[in-house]
Amino acid sequence: MNDENIKSTIQELAGIVNKYLDEVLQIKDPKRFYEAVRWLPMAGGKRLRPVIAMVVAKMFGADIEDIIPFALALELTHNFTLVHDDIIDEDEFRRGVPTVHTAFDIPTAIIAGDTLFAMAYRELSKLKVKGDILREILRDFSQMVIDLAEGEYEDVEFERRDDVTLDEYMEMIRKKTARIIQTACYGASLIGGQSTEIAEMMGEYGLNIGLAFQIQDDILGLIGDPKVTGKPVGSDIRKGKKTILVIHALNTLDSNRREELLTILKRPEKTEDDVKKAINLIISAGSVEYAKKRAREYSKRAVDILGRLPDNEYKDVLKFLANYVVERIK
Amino acid sequence: MNDENIKSTIQELAGIVNKYLDEVLQIKDPKRFYEAVRWLPMAGGKRLRPVIAMVVAKMFGADIEDIIPFALALELTHNFTLVHDDIIDEDEFRRGVPTVHTAFDIPTAIIAGDTLFAMAYRELSKLKVKGDILREILRDFSQMVIDLAEGEYEDVEFERRDDVTLDEYMEMIRKKTARIIQTACYGASLIGGQSTEIAEMMGEYGLNIGLAFQIQDDILGLIGDPKVTGKPVGSDIRKGKKTILVIHALNTLDSNRREELLTILKRPEKTEDDVKKAINLIISAGSVEYAKKRAREYSKRAVDILGRLPDNEYKDVLKFLANYVVERIK
Repeated sequence: MNDENIKSTIQELAGIVNKYLDEVLQIKDPKRFYEAVRWLPMAGGKRLRPVIAMVVAKMFGADIEDIIPFALALELTHNFTLVHDDIIDEDEFRRGVPTVHTAFDIPTAIIAGDTLFAMAYRELSKLKVKGDILREILRDFSQMVIDLAEGEYEDVEFERRDDVTLDEYMEMIRKKTARIIQTACYGASLIGGQSTEIAEMMGEYGLNIGLAFQIQDDILGLIGDPKVTGKPVGSDIRKGKKTILVIHALNTLDSNRREELLTILKRPEKTEDDVKKAINLIISAGSVEYAKKRAREYSKRAVDILGRLPDNEYKDVLKFLANYVVERIK
Repeated sequence: MNDENIKSTIQELAGIVNKYLDEVLQIKDPKRFYEAVRWLPMAGGKRLRPVIAMVVAKMFGADIEDIIPFALALELTHNFTLVHDDIIDEDEFRRGVPTVHTAFDIPTAIIAGDTLFAMAYRELSKLKVKGDILREILRDFSQMVIDLAEGEYEDVEFERRDDVTLDEYMEMIRKKTARIIQTACYGASLIGGQSTEIAEMMGEYGLNIGLAFQIQDDILGLIGDPKVTGKPVGSDIRKGKKTILVIHALNTLDSNRREELLTILKRPEKTEDDVKKAINLIISAGSVEYAKKRAREYSKRAVDILGRLPDNEYKDVLKFLANYVVERIK
């Protein structure tokens, strides 16, 4: 497939996800409650996780109907974690609209998130697979959510620490971001009738593009165009997040500059000047190039894994996605 | 079985739940996070939901090992909802210890609740039942959590309304409290190898004792002994909860006394005198007797359903539990 065909395939699959999400998230009584449940999932989003699962399943010859409940479960779970993370991070905007707890209130947002989570499992109960496969998907999916929770906890905890190592960071983003893409590829392979070995190999593909995706997210959070990303300039700096760029800069800068960066990161209220200064310190440490290099390494590993599979038009889409996650600007 | 045997059977089963919970909730890294996850489930509790499920499964001849993952899933889910409800209701104490968000912080409590929820589903993946049964348990369990969420939303929403009807109240407690006991009995019957018809009948038993349980909870919340219940005097009054007693009193009192009660309920900060006055108004309306009568009706319906089953020592335990839920003082 050429790039144009690939892009339209991805768009078509995202459209299918949107259509089914709209059905699952129909508003009923209590009305205001279901408006809150529907709010974030229907505000847009890349639908990256369900699309990857659909592409993997199609690559292995599954019918689109067979993968849809699993694809929806991934997107519902992703949205559930975002609704709760936004409360935790006190974020006011996402996807260009107020976050659920901002548009409604914190109690409603907590319960709306829980409901999206339960809806994800209700979708899994619709999977038409054999008992053992359903059990394994259920096990992996649940362990994934536990990992997501651990990762989110560590992400917040790292804000308060100065000594986060690169290894700790990689383990945190593995759990917080890469794990759900790993599950998307693993579960989709099982639904596509593949052996555990092939499913685990595909999981490795997902894990690697997940790591690349998060590192690129860190880069965009620092030097991305706010008009394109939808996030304010240096939003990670404002929160004092220990991104790969911050950790690399703290490991690389001389002690004076290191102290300067730490002082800014710890300041509860940061001025625009603080943020600019921090960004410049991080850039001067070569941390953007370092992060970019790491992201491309993980992307390449993902592509290498695909090399073990026979050629197929959906494999081209997966190759495209491995590149997209590191080259994207939003 | 006589009452002493029944009580020791219940205690024994609760002990098994505690032992397995302790294993599932072992502390690992990140340590403080798993301490928060473990906090509420290990602070005690009646283990009513898992015990009922175990008794139903045993009644139908299942091995105890077959029902344990399901029993744990119920208790983990119950605790997940309590952790989130305590944040929403701003409750500071439960089971005699500070609530999770009080002992830790709100972000940690949100994520700890999510983790308990995911752990519940991880337990379900351990069920050794056929694919179709697993799928049905997964479907019912997920729908139950959605109902729990709706019920919790309505419970909070009703605080702001003066015109909540008894029908609305019954529907709210069906979802918030009775539904999980219904699922406990329904799922346990399926695991015990019963047909959908029998499982639904047992679900009706669970639903009825759940309704009776919540009405008794409302009574204890108004006139229970704080030293026994562990809840402050008139805690529901302080929150302005629309319990069955409050709704009955509002429907029964003359308009002056009705206004007096409403004025107190709406006051954001209530004095001890306010609370006493509200309690006396509700008692004077005959609302305690009314609620007690309703609770006993539901308890009797549950017992009547058991009449359709052959005699069995575990049936005696279920009969005992139907009485216990309305006669308990804590």
